[in-house]
Amino acid sequence: MRIKVSRNRLIQIALVVLLLAVAFAVAFEYFEGVDFFTAFYWAVITMATIGYGDVTPSTEGGRIVAMVASVAGISTFTALVSLLAENFISSSLRRMMGMH
Amino acid sequence: MRIKVSRNRLIQIALVVLLLAVAFAVAFEYFEGVDFFTAFYWAVITMATIGYGDVTPSTEGGRIVAMVASVAGISTFTALVSLLAENFISSSLRRMMGMH
Amino acid sequence: MRIKVSRNRLIQIALVVLLLAVAFAVAFEYFEGVDFFTAFYWAVITMATIGYGDVTPSTEGGRIVAMVASVAGISTFTALVSLLAENFISSSLRRMMGMH
Amino acid sequence: MRIKVSRNRLIQIALVVLLLAVAFAVAFEYFEGVDFFTAFYWAVITMATIGYGDVTPSTEGGRIVAMVASVAGISTFTALVSLLAENFISSSLRRMMGMH
Ligand SMILES: [K+]
Ligand SMILES: [K+]
Repeated sequence: MRIKVSRNRLIQIALVVLLLAVAFAVAFEYFEGVDFFTAFYWAVITMATIGYGDVTPSTEGGRIVAMVASVAGISTFTALVSLLAENFISSSLRRMMGMH
Repeated sequence: MRIKVSRNRLIQIALVVLLLAVAFAVAFEYFEGVDFFTAFYWAVITMATIGYGDVTPSTEGGRIVAMVASVAGISTFTALVSLLAENFISSSLRRMMGMH
Repeated sequence: MRIKVSRNRLIQIALVVLLLAVAFAVAFEYFEGVDFFTAFYWAVITMATIGYGDVTPSTEGGRIVAMVASVAGISTFTALVSLLAENFISSSLRRMMGMH
Repeated sequence: MRIKVSRNRLIQIALVVLLLAVAFAVAFEYFEGVDFFTAFYWAVITMATIGYGDVTPSTEGGRIVAMVASVAGISTFTALVSLLAENFISSSLRRMMGMH
């Protein structure tokens, strides 16, 4: 993850993560019959690999959505978090060295 | 994780992850007495480190399977997710730079 | 994550993680009406992506705090854990090679 | 995580992870009054960031142990998993290229 990303690219990746979260939420809402906000909350908590377990799939379709989200969702979320983490470390270092 | 991987190698690693998920699912099914789909769902949610807690091991054998999956399963799943995340970042960059 | 960080910088990043954990805890306490220790415990378990599910948001506000923590909190926590993990690997290597 | 580690160093890091898991398990057992196997299972599931939530701390002491494990435990566990993941990717590549 050494690629130097500009603010624009970070926003682009964040948008893909957001779009995937919305897509998984819509699919989860369809199979599980919960409202969109709950489904979106479930998608974010799943893609972040937190997985509280307060909202979980009970149907076969919902579980398949969860498994797809665990590969596709986590990969893109991890990409975003890795870039943010690296940016955070770099900016901390720059601030320390008076290059802010 | 800087190794440039081809599509073939990604598929190969995905296959290892899938085989491990099936192996852990079979072992979990054996100890916990759940159906294969539930066991496979448990394996994926565990290897992805989501761990909802809706399906958890209640036997000593099942808990040992879970602990083995938490080392062997997560390592390979992390390898897959890291490669996908890196590919995703790279392809985003290439698309940005008009080199798709 | 190849940046060589000094002890001072590690402490600086740990402080940012601590400040964020306190901020998320205060917000969670406000929306969910739990005591500060429980809210802080929730924040750390969330930022570490453990997410036991013993303390979860039940209000819309609390869920939004959880989603913000899942991006901002995890990114900084991941930065800290990555640096500690890398330092740990490096120091293990140095000790092995008699350079402690 | 680009450091090339020998089998010996991997075993050394695995031992540190194991020792920490035992230490956290003993502390958890002390505060929560569960048996050692359950406490050790809790420690591994926590350090792996799975966090099923089937075994969670209910005392203040146990929650402090969980928070310490979420920083110290996860860092070393992540180091182990990262090295295993990298070794796994490398060996897959070598096998593909007939260099096993
Ligand atoms: K989790
Ligand atoms: K969890």
